[in-house]
Amino acid sequence: MTDPADDAAAMTPGVGGATDEPVPPQGSRWAQVDVAQLRFDQDGLVPVVVQQHDTGEVLMVAWADAPALQRTLALGEAVFYSRSRQEQWHKGATSGNTQRVLDVRVDCDADVVLYLVDQGSAGVACHTGERSCFHRRLTGAPTTPHQPGPAPAKESTP
Amino acid sequence: MTDPADDAAAMTPGVGGATDEPVPPQGSRWAQVDVAQLRFDQDGLVPVVVQQHDTGEVLMVAWADAPALQRTLALGEAVFYSRSRQEQWHKGATSGNTQRVLDVRVDCDADVVLYLVDQGSAGVACHTGERSCFHRRLTGAPTTPHQPGPAPAKESTP
Repeated sequence: MTDPADDAAAMTPGVGGATDEPVPPQGSRWAQVDVAQLRFDQDGLVPVVVQQHDTGEVLMVAWADAPALQRTLALGEAVFYSRSRQEQWHKGATSGNTQRVLDVRVDCDADVVLYLVDQGSAGVACHTGERSCFHRRLTGAPTTPHQPGPAPAKESTP
Repeated sequence: MTDPADDAAAMTPGVGGATDEPVPPQGSRWAQVDVAQLRFDQDGLVPVVVQQHDTGEVLMVAWADAPALQRTLALGEAVFYSRSRQEQWHKGATSGNTQRVLDVRVDCDADVVLYLVDQGSAGVACHTGERSCFHRRLTGAPTTPHQPGPAPAKESTP
């Protein structure tokens, strides 16, 4: 997780986008982190962001423990830890919606992981049947369905 | 967060990638979720994935509480909650590396948020000076720096 220390960030231009062939940042090879170096939370988990490697779609976010990460790396398919079932979860094992894992990234604080996957062009990540779990928009003001509230009062111009 | 219920996912093809002009999923408009409907954790927080809207780069993951989300929506710039400082954090307020927020998405379980932002072509999200916080790779086996271990034994072919 990034925290406000990042506001001391140097203005060094970065390279490489998630939609491109992976380009090591600022150097000739990627720095590597092993699973034992990750900073797991009090439950032994890290959040995992899952992104379609070529389109850049953020498909879902789930959790993983160390064994799930090790199995992901060994298997080449996305494995997570289900907090509700309290067990390892090989995504798609029953639905067929497996995620082929092409790369696994670690963030600066080593407490979040990013799976770059191939979900397949017709595959879906979400249990609702949507391609991505992020198929809704956040709005600010509480609303009651079918009863839109009054527009906020305009500030008068001085 | 997605959990194994998703393995019952229907095989409905999804539409729209994060790198495209936002396309409502499976319909003519985006379903909306208001801040009060989110499922915050025991600390009143949700994870926030931050993605560059046009390239698809996953820039960082941080946390937000309800006031930070409301301020993000009102301000049009990324605001988070700093767990280490225990205070609201308007990213870039001191460094200049603000993130203009173009859209905010909510996942199927309403417990993860996605900011689609413009970090600027020369802007950096990470306190290390990298464009993205995800600039390292995960490896499976523990390694000692400068002392690469022996290659794993090959399985003999039957």
